[in-house]
Amino acid sequence: MIIDIHGHYTTEPSAVHVFRDKQLAGLADPARRPSSADLGINDEALIASVRPQLDFQRERGSDLTIFSPRAAGMAHHVGTEDTGKEWSRLSNDLIHRICTLLPDNFAAVGQLPQFPGVSPKNCIPELERLASLDFVGVNLNPDPSGGYWTDPPLTDRYWYPVYEKLVELQMPAMIHVTSSCNPNFHHTGAHYINADTTAFMQLLQGDLFRDFPELKIVIPHGGGAVPYHWGRYRGLAMMLKKPTLADHLMKNVFFDACVYHFPGIELLTQVISSDNILFASEMLGAVRDIDPETGHHFDDTKRYVDRVEFLSEEDRYKIFEGNARKVYPRLDAQLRKRGKPGKVV
Amino acid sequence: MIIDIHGHYTTEPSAVHVFRDKQLAGLADPARRPSSADLGINDEALIASVRPQLDFQRERGSDLTIFSPRAAGMAHHVGTEDTGKEWSRLSNDLIHRICTLLPDNFAAVGQLPQFPGVSPKNCIPELERLASLDFVGVNLNPDPSGGYWTDPPLTDRYWYPVYEKLVELQMPAMIHVTSSCNPNFHHTGAHYINADTTAFMQLLQGDLFRDFPELKIVIPHGGGAVPYHWGRYRGLAMMLKKPTLADHLMKNVFFDACVYHFPGIELLTQVISSDNILFASEMLGAVRDIDPETGHHFDDTKRYVDRVEFLSEEDRYKIFEGNARKVYPRLDAQLRKRGKPGKVV
Repeated sequence: MIIDIHGHYTTEPSAVHVFRDKQLAGLADPARRPSSADLGINDEALIASVRPQLDFQRERGSDLTIFSPRAAGMAHHVGTEDTGKEWSRLSNDLIHRICTLLPDNFAAVGQLPQFPGVSPKNCIPELERLASLDFVGVNLNPDPSGGYWTDPPLTDRYWYPVYEKLVELQMPAMIHVTSSCNPNFHHTGAHYINADTTAFMQLLQGDLFRDFPELKIVIPHGGGAVPYHWGRYRGLAMMLKKPTLADHLMKNVFFDACVYHFPGIELLTQVISSDNILFASEMLGAVRDIDPETGHHFDDTKRYVDRVEFLSEEDRYKIFEGNARKVYPRLDAQLRKRGKPGKVV
Repeated sequence: MIIDIHGHYTTEPSAVHVFRDKQLAGLADPARRPSSADLGINDEALIASVRPQLDFQRERGSDLTIFSPRAAGMAHHVGTEDTGKEWSRLSNDLIHRICTLLPDNFAAVGQLPQFPGVSPKNCIPELERLASLDFVGVNLNPDPSGGYWTDPPLTDRYWYPVYEKLVELQMPAMIHVTSSCNPNFHHTGAHYINADTTAFMQLLQGDLFRDFPELKIVIPHGGGAVPYHWGRYRGLAMMLKKPTLADHLMKNVFFDACVYHFPGIELLTQVISSDNILFASEMLGAVRDIDPETGHHFDDTKRYVDRVEFLSEEDRYKIFEGNARKVYPRLDAQLRKRGKPGKVV
């Protein structure tokens, strides 16, 4: 079974955008507020909206996508904390409906109603609601300011209430920023990758997993710059008198495989243990075109993993399925309940 | 000849730090201002201070280091524009003296008196002074705020006066941030690498080299995350309707080789044309320890380049010498004047 742990709902029906426009317009003119959070999207329309994802699953040979709302759409820095709560709830409910309609194709990851300068503990009610709806994880934004990085680092106690709840609920967090309102940072070309690199270095500097040995953190986009600069990070761990990266971080930190060319995936799989890599494509995501050098989509990352010669069958199983079951135990439980226990490795 | 294009003066005599402390203390209490910018460091002491660099050059087999003030020391966000001007002048003068004393070992790159929110054109007098002192390039900080990214992107006309002057003086700019006052960003572990990635993406989004076809930009630290995510950037160029990266950027943008493990250097040299890579070690820089996995210093990057099997002799010449002469034409002219013309490739 091939599990793609990083897919966003980037094919939403236009009613979703109409709602969001009205909701934000309502901040300036209350008369423009949407009259209802019922978008009037029926199940057929919802299934039709994820047809592109289903087609890619079949064409590329993946089975199940861990699916969350559009990352750039979270926009925690926009509007008010209250509009953010309503928007998160609505976005998560759509994911829930899709995953309920197509449980063999999608498992749900939620967005949190974070707001810059507001304690993340305000997200706990939504986090508990997500757990009650069979979500298997959440996206956690390390920079709710949208590119100005005004909240504390991830190792600060500011974030601890969320970590406590995540551990209690057996949910991992994927560290994922949203759109950027800072003109210095293109969202998919700079802000996302920088956030991945930044999160890893914050974890390296701190001792978060001493306090949360059960917490699992997924750093997407192949870990940002980290695997490419693995020597730098090993050296920085030495300079900062930390244990080796393997002991200090890599029982708790995992990288996805959203790297859009073969040499990048080859480096990732060469440098990072196969225990710490999760297959992912981010589809339909940052880069949607066909690579003229290969004739295949840039984000058809399965091809790259398949091409890496030195991976054993066991390595491949871990990357494509086993690690996802380990990092997302709620998904594993759901699959077992449906008669799909996975392999013992 | 082996040219290391990225070295910082991180072994300054303590008198430099004493001066800086007094200078900044003087902002709070004018009575504490340093009485003179003459640090009382004689030539012998200056030469002794770069003994570690000279030893490493000999041990590792490099000849000449392009040498600039400590990057984290620039701290453009600290103090006032005036203290920054004095500090830049003093820092650059030390580099000038070292390069004059040891012209076969060091060539000078300067720091600019940038200040957050202040037009970079205020740096032009120092830039012209540097040219008169035979400096071959400058470090340009894309984020003088020190981690809050409050100035415009590098493609904004805000920066054009500096680019015009750089082209006139035949100087390249290495894009290099300084220390971070944002607790989210460790300087060498996050801020530096993020700035590299950010700068490349800004250049990708813009059309700077249509206006400045002669401008040369060096992105250090192996190009940040860019080569590892080269497929992403090729795909983003397509999505943004830009020419290929080769046509759009790679006549003007160069990456250094400060990547501290073999797999990273192998990827860099595999993905990026040998016309666009400049040998560098950042010594003595971000990571100073010996890698326990190899028994050699992490930043002994020449070993990694030497180990890459698929590089031709011509590739190696370009990476170790030829590209540095091309990107730093003032250095090439100085070397020719000293009877070292380089090879024709």
